[in-house]
Parts: sequence; structure tokens; C-alpha cells
Amino acid sequence: MVRWKPGARERLQAAALERFAAQGFDGTTVAEIAATAGLTERTFFRHFADKREVLFAGQDEFERLFLAGIEEAAGSDPMAIVAAALEGATAFFPDERRAWSRARQRVIDADPGLQERELLKLSGLATAMTDGLRRRGVDPTAAALAAESGVAVFRVGFATWIGEGEERPLAEVLRAVLAELRTLVTTPQA
Amino acid sequence: MVRWKPGARERLQAAALERFAAQGFDGTTVAEIAATAGLTERTFFRHFADKREVLFAGQDEFERLFLAGIEEAAGSDPMAIVAAALEGATAFFPDERRAWSRARQRVIDADPGLQERELLKLSGLATAMTDGLRRRGVDPTAAALAAESGVAVFRVGFATWIGEGEERPLAEVLRAVLAELRTLVTTPQA
Repeated sequence: MVRWKPGARERLQAAALERFAAQGFDGTTVAEIAATAGLTERTFFRHFADKREVLFAGQDEFERLFLAGIEEAAGSDPMAIVAAALEGATAFFPDERRAWSRARQRVIDADPGLQERELLKLSGLATAMTDGLRRRGVDPTAAALAAESGVAVFRVGFATWIGEGEERPLAEVLRAVLAELRTLVTTPQA
Repeated sequence: MVRWKPGARERLQAAALERFAAQGFDGTTVAEIAATAGLTERTFFRHFADKREVLFAGQDEFERLFLAGIEEAAGSDPMAIVAAALEGATAFFPDERRAWSRARQRVIDADPGLQERELLKLSGLATAMTDGLRRRGVDPTAAALAAESGVAVFRVGFATWIGEGEERPLAEVLRAVLAELRTLVTTPQA
């Protein structure tokens, strides 16, 4: 994959976001996306099952990377495993991807059906992380809590990363959010 | 409301759960629920908009109680506010309700559409909690993290509470889960 001459897949993704932003997700057809990219519908369907897949295909790869991190992280402390997996998965979101992620989020925020899909996927990720931690011998309650906390840190951190004016890399933002969670949870309760 | 002679609403809820458990959520009609309760469909619709509402009406009340807790809790520490709101909302789940909650969960776990609805409601609760914390002056990142952590503690604690053989009251379970989150998050990262 050569950055300065994006392939069909990247052109289709850029064209889809452009159309979704201009005329809404529901108001855009695959034919229009393909035409905007200067490609055929047939090519579109070689890369994506449908127009929604353009927005979520990347997320699948990210989830696989994240879950592989849960399997491979060193040590046995559940939050250390989750933190290592988060850190590893940030490789999927280099700074070059920030503008695309920001535009994608605007499309999703404008469509309740896409928001639901996003929520369900993140919830599925938490369940898969819980299973991964349990396979590593973490007890069920700790596994569920560490997984849910990890997803919460990712959600809050990702929203910060794509915020207007934010320039820190995602890994740095996630470390800061994790530190903030630690402070929040350990402040002596009144 | 007199416990030993439940009213129409309670009879309809019990009848609905019985039917859903026996023949599935999709395979049950409002007419059957009403007949099982010895009441008319007309009475059913005075209490619930549809059969799904039988499972989720209580959740609405619980959410209002929870959010009122966010508004009214003393102090300014975000997690202390969330912990106080959790504690207050447990009044909604006395031990007498445990068997009903357990049966309800089995119905929901058996139906992907109901699972989605449950997830979306909990996600909406996290968003509403975040807004409530922000109105109390908590900064956006801390508000989102405290809200998401609170919902995670509730989910994990509630699943524990309805587990077979569990006998501790919900408030006690939630305190234990919150303490476990504190331990998890503060264990020195390797």
C-alpha cells in the first residue's frame, strides 16, 4: 500500500465519507460512491459488502489487533494486560488517520442506526475482551470490570483524540485517560 | 400496592414473564399475557404500550432514580457522587425483586433484539449520567469516565446479584464491585 497513490479501497473510503458528509448516509448509494471514486460498483463490492461496511471494516481489524494484544500481553495483572492491549492497538490509528476518523465520527453521530451499530460493536468488544482475560486465568468479575474499564478508557480517549484542536497521538491520550481513571477511582470517597 | 394481593400491573408482569419463558418473547401475544393474568387486553394497554414495555418499564423508573441520585448526592468528587447514586438506586431492587430480575434476564439473554434494547438503554444512561455530572461542574473527561465506570460497576454487580446462589443485597454487591475496581485500577502496572 503506497500512501501517495491510494489504492481502490482507500479511494472508495474517501469517496464514501465525502458523499455521506454531503448528503447523509441514507441518501447515498453505492453507485454514487463508486462514481465519486472513479471506479465501478463491481469494484466497490469486491472491497465491501455494503456501504455501511465502509465505515466499520476498519473497526473489525482494530478489534482483532486489540484482542490479539489481550492474548499476548506480558504479566498477569488484568489492567496491565488491558493497558498493553490498548497501547498496541493504537498502531491502528496513526496521526494520518485522525482526519478520517473525525469525519467518520461526524457521519455516525448524524445517524441513529449507525450509532447503534457502533455501540453494539463496542459492547461485543468488551465481551470478547472479558473472554480473553478469563482464558488467561483472570476471575470473572475482575475480567468483566477490566474489560469494561478498558473500553470506557478507549471510548473517552478516542473522542478526545478526534476532538478539534487535539494534537497528541492516541497512545499518549489513552495513557492520560487511564491515569485520570486511576485518580478518579482512588480519590478517598467522602 | 399490597404485596400479598398484587394489582393488575404486577399480575401482567408475572404473566408476561411466565409466557416469555415458556414460549419465547416473539412467540407470545398480548392476548395470551392478558389471559394468563385473568385480565383483558384493554387492561394490558392501560399499563403498557406493548409487550416489550413489560420488561423495560421498571428500568425507566430505575434510571430516573439513578439520575436523581446524581443530582442530589453530596460532595463534589465524581466517583463519590456516582457511588452515592448507585447506592440510592438499589432501593429499586430489594431482595423480593431478585427472582423476577433473574427471570427477566433469562428472557432478554434469549433474544438478540431485547439484548440490543438493554445495551442501548444502559448506554443512554451513561450519557445522561455524564450530562448530570457536567451540570455539577465535573470536567467532561472525568464526567464521562466516572459515568462509564459507574455503569460498568452496575452491570457487573447486577449480573452477580442475579447469579444462582447469590444472597447478598445488591447494595453490598455493588460496594464489593466498586472496591474491586479500585484494587484493579491501582495495582502497580508492570
